[in-house]
Order: sequence, then C-alpha cells, then structure tokens
Amino acid sequence: MAITINCDMGESFGLYRMGDDAGMMPFIDIANVACGFHASDFNHMRATVQLAKKHGVKVGAHPSLPDLQGFGRREMKMGREEMANCLIYQIGALSGFLKAEGMELNHIKPHGSLFGMAGRLEEIAQAVCDAADVYTVPLLGMTGTLHETVYPARGHRMIAEYYGDLDYRPDGTLIVTREHDAKDPDEMAARVLRAIEQGEGTATDGSHFPTRCESICIHSDTPNALDIARAVRTAIAPYSEKRT
Amino acid sequence: MAITINCDMGESFGLYRMGDDAGMMPFIDIANVACGFHASDFNHMRATVQLAKKHGVKVGAHPSLPDLQGFGRREMKMGREEMANCLIYQIGALSGFLKAEGMELNHIKPHGSLFGMAGRLEEIAQAVCDAADVYTVPLLGMTGTLHETVYPARGHRMIAEYYGDLDYRPDGTLIVTREHDAKDPDEMAARVLRAIEQGEGTATDGSHFPTRCESICIHSDTPNALDIARAVRTAIAPYSEKRT
Amino acid sequence: MAITINCDMGESFGLYRMGDDAGMMPFIDIANVACGFHASDFNHMRATVQLAKKHGVKVGAHPSLPDLQGFGRREMKMGREEMANCLIYQIGALSGFLKAEGMELNHIKPHGSLFGMAGRLEEIAQAVCDAADVYTVPLLGMTGTLHETVYPARGHRMIAEYYGDLDYRPDGTLIVTREHDAKDPDEMAARVLRAIEQGEGTATDGSHFPTRCESICIHSDTPNALDIARAVRTAIAPYSEKRT
Amino acid sequence: MAITINCDMGESFGLYRMGDDAGMMPFIDIANVACGFHASDFNHMRATVQLAKKHGVKVGAHPSLPDLQGFGRREMKMGREEMANCLIYQIGALSGFLKAEGMELNHIKPHGSLFGMAGRLEEIAQAVCDAADVYTVPLLGMTGTLHETVYPARGHRMIAEYYGDLDYRPDGTLIVTREHDAKDPDEMAARVLRAIEQGEGTATDGSHFPTRCESICIHSDTPNALDIARAVRTAIAPYSEKRT
Repeated sequence: MAITINCDMGESFGLYRMGDDAGMMPFIDIANVACGFHASDFNHMRATVQLAKKHGVKVGAHPSLPDLQGFGRREMKMGREEMANCLIYQIGALSGFLKAEGMELNHIKPHGSLFGMAGRLEEIAQAVCDAADVYTVPLLGMTGTLHETVYPARGHRMIAEYYGDLDYRPDGTLIVTREHDAKDPDEMAARVLRAIEQGEGTATDGSHFPTRCESICIHSDTPNALDIARAVRTAIAPYSEKRT
Repeated sequence: MAITINCDMGESFGLYRMGDDAGMMPFIDIANVACGFHASDFNHMRATVQLAKKHGVKVGAHPSLPDLQGFGRREMKMGREEMANCLIYQIGALSGFLKAEGMELNHIKPHGSLFGMAGRLEEIAQAVCDAADVYTVPLLGMTGTLHETVYPARGHRMIAEYYGDLDYRPDGTLIVTREHDAKDPDEMAARVLRAIEQGEGTATDGSHFPTRCESICIHSDTPNALDIARAVRTAIAPYSEKRT
Repeated sequence: MAITINCDMGESFGLYRMGDDAGMMPFIDIANVACGFHASDFNHMRATVQLAKKHGVKVGAHPSLPDLQGFGRREMKMGREEMANCLIYQIGALSGFLKAEGMELNHIKPHGSLFGMAGRLEEIAQAVCDAADVYTVPLLGMTGTLHETVYPARGHRMIAEYYGDLDYRPDGTLIVTREHDAKDPDEMAARVLRAIEQGEGTATDGSHFPTRCESICIHSDTPNALDIARAVRTAIAPYSEKRT
Repeated sequence: MAITINCDMGESFGLYRMGDDAGMMPFIDIANVACGFHASDFNHMRATVQLAKKHGVKVGAHPSLPDLQGFGRREMKMGREEMANCLIYQIGALSGFLKAEGMELNHIKPHGSLFGMAGRLEEIAQAVCDAADVYTVPLLGMTGTLHETVYPARGHRMIAEYYGDLDYRPDGTLIVTREHDAKDPDEMAARVLRAIEQGEGTATDGSHFPTRCESICIHSDTPNALDIARAVRTAIAPYSEKRT
C-alpha cells in the first residue's frame, strides 16, 4: 500500500494565520482539516477544503477538544458520550463543506491532547470509535497506543502514523509541545525512511524503537515545514503514489 | 397539503435549560433544532435529535448568527460568503447527529436576527440559499419578505410560516423580542385558524393583513408554550396529519 | 468571629437563568459572583453586584476554568502562570463592576473544578495565591486540602468553608456533581451546627470527620436552595451577625 | 502639549501571533491593549502589560465588541446599558494586570467597529462615557464624530487621534478594513506632520480636510508597521517627549 504524507491544515482563525497551507498542498496526499474547536472557523474550513480540492488532496476531519485558546493542547476531562458528541458535531460541520465541494470525507484524525488521550484512555478511544461509527472512515493513529488495539477491535481501520517533524522518547512515545520547533529536513527524511523500511522509529537519544508507518505527519506550523515536506516527499517517492 | 406545527428546540446549553422540549414533542410535526451558535451544544443537539426520533418528529436545522450570549437576537454585519459558510457549518454539524440516528434533514429555518435579516437584506437571503443549495431541503420563511421572493427564485421551496405565539404589527411584520411573553391559547388558536382559512394574519391592534400559513411556529421558551401548542393542535386538526 | 453564609451567584448567562439570586440574597452574608468563565456575562455580573449592594451583601469573585459549556466542572490542565493570569483577568473584570457601584472586593473563591484542583495540586494552589497577591483579600477554602496549607503559607487568610447542601465522603472529601440535588433543610442545618459547634463534618454514611466552619456555602442552583438557606440561617443565628 | 504615538497591542491570541509588539514598543508612547474580546487573552494581556512597563510605555484599554472571530470588525447591535457593561468588564480585566504590575490605567480607546459606532451612534457614545465614568481616564477619539461632542459633554477629555497608517475619504471619514495594507513610511510621516502643523488630514484623492492630531495611531498588524513608526517618530520629534 502506498505511503502518504498527511498534514494538519486549515488552522488559521479569523484574521490570524497559521501554517502555509497553500505551500504545503503540493507535497501532501491527505489533509487533516481543523473543525473550529482548536483552530479554524467556517471561513477557513471552506477555503481549506477548496484548496485541497484544487490540489487533488483528500480531506479528513481533525476534531479537537473544545479549546480554541489552548489550541486543543490542554487536556480536559470529558466522558465518553460527551466526547463522542463533540466529535460527531465537528466532523459533521466539516462534512458540510465537503458536500458543498462534492468531496467525500477521507478519514478522521483526533487533534492534539485528544489524540494523546485516545491513545491512553479507554473511554476516549471508544468515544473516537463511536464517532467513527457514524462516518465509517479510517482513523489515523499511533502504534503502541490504544489506537492500535481499540480502533480495530471496534471494526475501524487504523492508518499508522509516524511523525516526520516531532521527537520521540526512547520508549516510542511522542513528545508533544504547544509550539513546534524547526527540524533538520534530511534527518527527518532519514528517520521516516527507517520507519517505513525497517519499522523502527528514532528517539531523541538516537536509539530506536519498533514502529509502523503508513502515513507521515508533517505539521504546517512547524517553522520549516515546507523544507521538511519536500525532503520527505523525495525520500518516500518509491513508496508513494503522488508525483510532484 | 397538510399544515404542520414547528417548534424551535434543543435550545438548552450546558447546565442551562430552555424550553420544555419533551413536553412539546407530542404536539408538533417538525422541530427546528439549534446548532450551537445561538443556543445548544453537541450534547443537547444529540439528545434533541433522539427525542424527535422517538416522537416521530422531523428535524430541520435552526442555524444562527454566532452569538451565544445574545441568543442570536443581536444583528451582526456579515457578508454573503461568510454567512453562507456560517450556515453550512451549523447545518453540517446537525446533519452529523441526524446521520448518527439514521434520520434525514427535513428543512432549514434561520434563527432570530438572521431570520429577520434574510427577510430584509438581499445578500443574506442569497447566503441562506447558498447554504440550502448544499443540503437541498425546503426553507421555512415568512410571507411579505425577501424569503418569499429570493428563495423560490433560487429554486428553493419556501414553507410559509405563521407565528402562533408572537405578535404582528398592522403592516404584517413580526414583533421579535429577546424574551417571549405568555399568550392566550384560545386567541392564538383562533388567529392561526384565520391565517389558514382566510389567509389573514391578526395584528396587535386587531386589524388584519394578508398572509399565508403552511406551518405554525410555537416557541418552546414561551412561558405557556404547552397550552398554546395544545390549543393550536386541536384547532388545526382538520388540516393536519398528526393525530395526538 | 461571626459565621457567614456564602452563595455562588450571578450564574445566569444571556437569556439562560440559573438560581434564584434575588430570593437568596436576604439569607446570605457574602456572594461569590461568577466572572463569565463558567457562567455569567457582563450584564448578569453588573445586575448581581447591584442586587448584592441593595441587600448589603458583600461581594467576592468566583473565578473559574475557562469552560462555559461545562460550567467549570470539567478539569483542564493548565500551568501555574497561565492559571494565575486566568484568575487575575476574571477578578479584575468583576472589580470593574464593584468600582462602578462603589463597592470593595471582599474575597476570592475559586469555582468548581478549579476549587478542587487548588486543593489537590500545588501549582494550582500557588496560582490562586499569585492572583490573591494582586487583590489582597481572603480566600474561601476547605480544611484538609492544600487550601489550608498553601494559602496561609503565602500570607493569605483562608476562610474555612463547610458545604451546607453537598455531601461528603467519610474521609471528609466533598462529593462534587455537575448538577445539585435537593437536600433536607433540617438535616442540613443540623450538619452545619455540628460543624460549627463540634468541628465535625457529617459524611454520607453518617460518620463524622474533623472539619472547621467559618462560612457555610449554599448553592443557589440547588433545587430547594431557599429552604435550606432559611433553615441554616435560623440555626446559625447565635453565631451570626446578620438579622433577617 | 506633547504629541504621542499610540499603538494597538496585545492582539495575539493563544498560539496565534499578531503584530510585532516588542519591535514597536521603542517607538510609541502609549499602548492600547486588547482585552480579550476582539483579540488577546489573559496570557497575552499580562505579557503585553509587562512589555509596556519595561519600555516605559503607558497602557490604556482597547475594549471591543464581543467578536473574536471577526476581530471586532463586524458591527453588532447592542444597547447602551449592555455596551457599557461590556466595556466595564474588559477595562476591569485589563486593570487587574495593571494592578499586578503596579501601573495605572492611562486611557480608553474603543476598538474597531465599536470605535466607529461610538462616533456615529449617540447611545454607543454614551455607553463609552458610562464606562469612562467608572475609570475616569481620557478617551482616544476622532474629530468630526460624536466622540468630539459627546465625550466632552459628559466631562471626559478626548485625545484627538490621527491615523498614521490608514486612509481617509475626502470627507474626513476613516476607511476601515479588516486587514491593513503596507503604506509608504515617508508619505505617512508627511501626512502626520501636516495634521499636526496645519490641522489638515490627507484623503485618498490627495485632497485635505480639517482635522486635529494629539496622538498618532499606528497599527502593529500593518505589514510594515515598524518602518512607519520609525519615520513618524522621527518626523514628530519636535512635538514629542519621547527620545528614542
């Protein structure tokens, strides 16, 4: 199966700009579009869906905890039912713009703290599946977490993500920060290739851990996101469908 | 064609309660469900859709200006494109819950100030149609306003509403207040019958104006909404499909 | 020192009503006024401050996590500096209305989950003190928690609260629910008296735990809040300054 | 009296950045700090107040309509009392951070659409004065509008502003746009000098209109704001107290 590059997009809000979405589009296969809860609003969602359509990029939903000020990166205690409703709302809203553009929802990728919580807390992983039951699309997730066990157990395909611009701890857990740092593009490309070819992630101390990579995530708010995307795109050409 | 009773519902928010939705459901045919912008949230939307399903009540979207504190009853200056996006977002979000419950979107009814603006401002009426283009369902609207001209001109059916619990001015315009007062149920039922049978609305000074009534709106936050609904339901029995 | 009754007030929002503030005012000494983050808005804050003034009730700030939909009853992960800023903002906003009415800020009482977090998490208790450093008023708090140790260590007086309408576990911890249940007024009054006179709280299993009571909290959104307030007011008359 | 340069600041929100506040501080005398309703949040407000303190820049409040998504640049219909409360809340919140830093509130400058509404609508101008009554500081305003008549009639000093980076129509009204364009620094400096020395503003067609300039506003979100600030600062040196 072809390896894809995915990118969180549509994260501008009102007059505020975040990420060079137009610049990134040529390098990616699938866009995770923010749904207004951690970022974006109805105008940016519409524009981002149109931009993706223009570039032949598939669109998935990138729903979040309801926390615009914290960019969805502050954990909140929410129960399963409430969380499922929170997700159904956001994915539905995005689906409206896809419908407007004659596109289909491609996947769901929970954002930020919600992504982490779904990997660690059974009831949140179940809530993600409750929402996925409604939309019946695959979920982007991470190996070594509840994503890998709960999603398939509930009948949902998990597309295994490897982060091409974030650091990992030696135990394979992701280091999530509120703001992202620039990374060396070549090093990132090398790490990604190793993840694809040898099933090994690279930790901050240079050690390796078992992983799986079906899609590579690059954040558009990483300072040198375009350089990383270009380097990774080139590196994964043999495993990829997209030609740039 | 059968006359229906419609009601704005799902207007609770968090711990705050608004309207006796469960009490009203048996008396109505179609529910206009708030979409989180003037009222409601993802939990109340889900619960309201489930409640409607249980009662065999059809569900339409009741989108609003983005103004929770003002309950969508403060006008805001927004352009056509922005307003269309605002509507598509909200209707999409509600559609998510309908999808979850195996239901179809029945109609769209803009809420509060947006309803009034769409009746008076060409670009807002067009924006409502832009959103309706996406979902292809009828629009609830009011005779003597732009609803009646713009909606059909854009190919959308307008279901003509008569308000069963609000007052009209002698010129046929609706008196919209931030909070609703109790009304005499029998008088309201009589006004509604006259609107259906004689095509005449009743103004505060007792005078009449030409109108059309295909659906009667009763607000669940009117203090004696249940009494009004019961009286109107009984009065319109000859013109109605619902049997209580 | 005189025992007081305090009550969370001003928790209405927009058209939504919460609690019978006007009814409660005659029975209480100090009002904890919501600051717009879990409840209230600038209109209700103004009105509540005016109402308190009319009744000779002192006003404190009742700041919260930023979570209107969850009524401040969902925990959120926030750091010390961010939390301090969150509190300074809210208390400042309330102080504006006090200034407008020629009143002084009387105290600070963190709301809901924030109250609990400040009792359990060192950095949150410190953040509360950081905010209290700015306004230099006492803090309402609970015995057996970090309130009792951190606040005085930072030079802030803690007024020990006993909850007159909530249940306690045998270990003396409070059972916090998203919505409150009605309670037997006489039983509540008896519990309160025991807390004052014998320094003993009463748990759900009838057992007792050591406590301290300088102020009794009664929530205005407890269904029979007025009855409880009346019973408690009468019971504590010998220890109180207020005459009703 | 010395001419000042004022700048809208603290308009970042969460992870979103707006304007180079740190870069602008050396060039300005007074900062209009956003209060969280059109921009900013409690963290950015704190940081901006601290930054101003460090640079010896005085801080005024820059309150807005409650419209974060629209950056306070969409008009909303609000009544006098409601608007006054809206302002008192925001100015109080900012005052909390000033108190924390041992600073005094210097002035009030309504933001965006609110600024325009106060210049055109009697009840909004009165609402601004209602809020100013509480804080008793001068108001930044514009000649040829209700600011100039209502504020002084209510006993509030109006500091006359001339916009150093926006365009004016031949009738002296300001052209307000949602996003600002870059301007030629030298041309802007020349326009400002003419406003100070000859009491004449410059319109887009090159014509002039009578004006008055006690303070020059430069927006930090104008693309080349720093260049304009530098040029204007140099030009007004003879009329200014600040030495850079």
